[in-house]
Amino acid sequence: MRVVVAPDSFKGSLDAPAAAAAIAEGIVRAAPGATVVARPMADGGEGTLDAVMRAAGAMATRGSLGVEGAGGARIDAGYGIVERDGAPTAVLEAAQVVAITDAAGTSVAVTSRSTRGLGEQIGALLDRGVRRFMIGLGGSSTNDGGAGLLAALGVRFVDTDGRDVAPTPGGLARLAHADASALDARLGQCEITIMSDVNNPLAGARGATAIFGPQKGVAPERVGPIDATLARYAAIVEAALGRRASERPGAGAAGGLGFALMLAGGTMRSGAEVVADLIGLDAALDGADWAITGEGKSDAQTLLAKAPSVVADRARALRVPVSLLSGAVDAASLPALHARFAGGCFALPAGPATLDACMRDAAALLADRAEAMTRLFVAAGSARC
Amino acid sequence: MRVVVAPDSFKGSLDAPAAAAAIAEGIVRAAPGATVVARPMADGGEGTLDAVMRAAGAMATRGSLGVEGAGGARIDAGYGIVERDGAPTAVLEAAQVVAITDAAGTSVAVTSRSTRGLGEQIGALLDRGVRRFMIGLGGSSTNDGGAGLLAALGVRFVDTDGRDVAPTPGGLARLAHADASALDARLGQCEITIMSDVNNPLAGARGATAIFGPQKGVAPERVGPIDATLARYAAIVEAALGRRASERPGAGAAGGLGFALMLAGGTMRSGAEVVADLIGLDAALDGADWAITGEGKSDAQTLLAKAPSVVADRARALRVPVSLLSGAVDAASLPALHARFAGGCFALPAGPATLDACMRDAAALLADRAEAMTRLFVAAGSARC
Repeated sequence: MRVVVAPDSFKGSLDAPAAAAAIAEGIVRAAPGATVVARPMADGGEGTLDAVMRAAGAMATRGSLGVEGAGGARIDAGYGIVERDGAPTAVLEAAQVVAITDAAGTSVAVTSRSTRGLGEQIGALLDRGVRRFMIGLGGSSTNDGGAGLLAALGVRFVDTDGRDVAPTPGGLARLAHADASALDARLGQCEITIMSDVNNPLAGARGATAIFGPQKGVAPERVGPIDATLARYAAIVEAALGRRASERPGAGAAGGLGFALMLAGGTMRSGAEVVADLIGLDAALDGADWAITGEGKSDAQTLLAKAPSVVADRARALRVPVSLLSGAVDAASLPALHARFAGGCFALPAGPATLDACMRDAAALLADRAEAMTRLFVAAGSARC
Repeated sequence: MRVVVAPDSFKGSLDAPAAAAAIAEGIVRAAPGATVVARPMADGGEGTLDAVMRAAGAMATRGSLGVEGAGGARIDAGYGIVERDGAPTAVLEAAQVVAITDAAGTSVAVTSRSTRGLGEQIGALLDRGVRRFMIGLGGSSTNDGGAGLLAALGVRFVDTDGRDVAPTPGGLARLAHADASALDARLGQCEITIMSDVNNPLAGARGATAIFGPQKGVAPERVGPIDATLARYAAIVEAALGRRASERPGAGAAGGLGFALMLAGGTMRSGAEVVADLIGLDAALDGADWAITGEGKSDAQTLLAKAPSVVADRARALRVPVSLLSGAVDAASLPALHARFAGGCFALPAGPATLDACMRDAAALLADRAEAMTRLFVAAGSARC
């Protein structure tokens, strides 16, 4: 029996590799002869670089570059290089540079944070000859419309007096003009894949500021003004580049990084789909008897190209039954979830339990539940053959 | 696909038939073509009569008799008559007469409660020609050593002055002598099966009063004196009858009813085993693809001849994989439980949840979990064939 274990992270308790290890332990307890193929997933956010590097093994190299963090301080930001079709591909993660979990970055007001560091990282890798990028958005603390990234790559932002303005929500409030003539020409030779599962446009009621701003620290009364600033910024920079991107799905990802990267020539793809490709999920699933995926909490959102759904779709295409094992499954979403996860949707608790206890004991609970599921799977296989 | 659903009750939330119905609903949601055979279980305690009557269907008749309740007030106590091998068999339940859940009974101090009503019920059925009895213990509020039952069947209990004493812990404190000469002679023609999963002796450190007395209202400082009263009562009545039973496993069941019924010629059997026989569990399991059992909370106790364990043993003997689906499964007991329930042990919650919420939503949660288990069972069967 070969089982593919491909969970996303259980946010706040286990990263994806630890979740996969716990599930694998339970499987082997129930079926000591089983071969477990662990393929920890990610969705383009935090953990994406780890998932890809782990799956690539010896084919990958890791590095880091000193760049500007969200708040302006210099930080060491990790990246990976994998060989894909004979060419080096850089795997970047916005969360390596401007993570919402980075205390130094979030100690500065959101109106003063920028994504400049990610642009610096791309520039440095361009210098090293890299022309293919996979960039995971998600988990960012910034809301600068990607102006920092564009500034680092050569776009100049100035006020009515021709003076440079900072590529931050605060600075862009005074933006009058953008000069894209010095934009790094090497971007034209690049293939940039943007990994995200956010479909929001840059501005407006469903835009980055309105939907994601508050969780990054945008005060309620500042949502409207900052959103207007980003809309005006978008119109100016789009005019300067002769391209449009602000209305496209995903432009609002990572506080507008999606917009800037699309302007720079990037193509938006589901983060989980790209990760599945990068980690060789299809090859792992091909011929497997069963797959288990999962995440911290599964609900209707799970069905929107989140990692477990991508695993389910890939598994179904290869006729591998797939089960969901999450910290919690939303009861109201179960009919829809069961339509996607034909092998059943399961949850962590062994009985009444608090969220804290579930998070604290997540590894042991995962192993126990996976063991029970495997026992049922094996028993059913024996009974029905 | 044929699935046998044989849960015990989920105490405090669902009786066994309701639990079976919820599990069946989930199975059919996942496998609309499945045949579900519901065999709600019981262990000799509350619910035993219902389980047997339900399974016997048209072969059974139900009745009730006006008898004395635990506290002395007259109550209507149900019983059933089933045909077994051509002879009428009375199915009685101590909880129908002296239930711990009966407010009228427990409004009287435990020292004044007696099991007389159960003896009256047996006497009335003897009058009607019944000679075979299945009597479920468990769920009783009494701690009279079964003296009330023996009194109703003709044994006289008197003090040093030859005056009758009440067959209660309070009355027996003055017991000097027992006269068994008028014990109903028809008992000698009877086959009496006592259903219990309690192995305790009548008296002593593991006796009825020490172990079960406190939950019936025996004050801590009264445990010793009442235990001594029962020990002395046992010696006296054993001498009067020329039989011994107080040390036998189960003598301490139902506050000593086990002792009295064994003195009256009864044979102690596991309640769940007898119920399994009475409801035709083996015939239901024979040739089934899968069985699901469960209970409110599963732990090491479950393995001691509780209903789910009996279902597991019967299923294993017939090579039917069996899964456990309980309100909660004790993590520390999982290795032992998984050794018994080869089809895996599952719990109700869909995520972090309070005990109250689990009990309130038990039916919906049971259906959802059974649905997921069935999806996995079906997927595994398809995948591995």
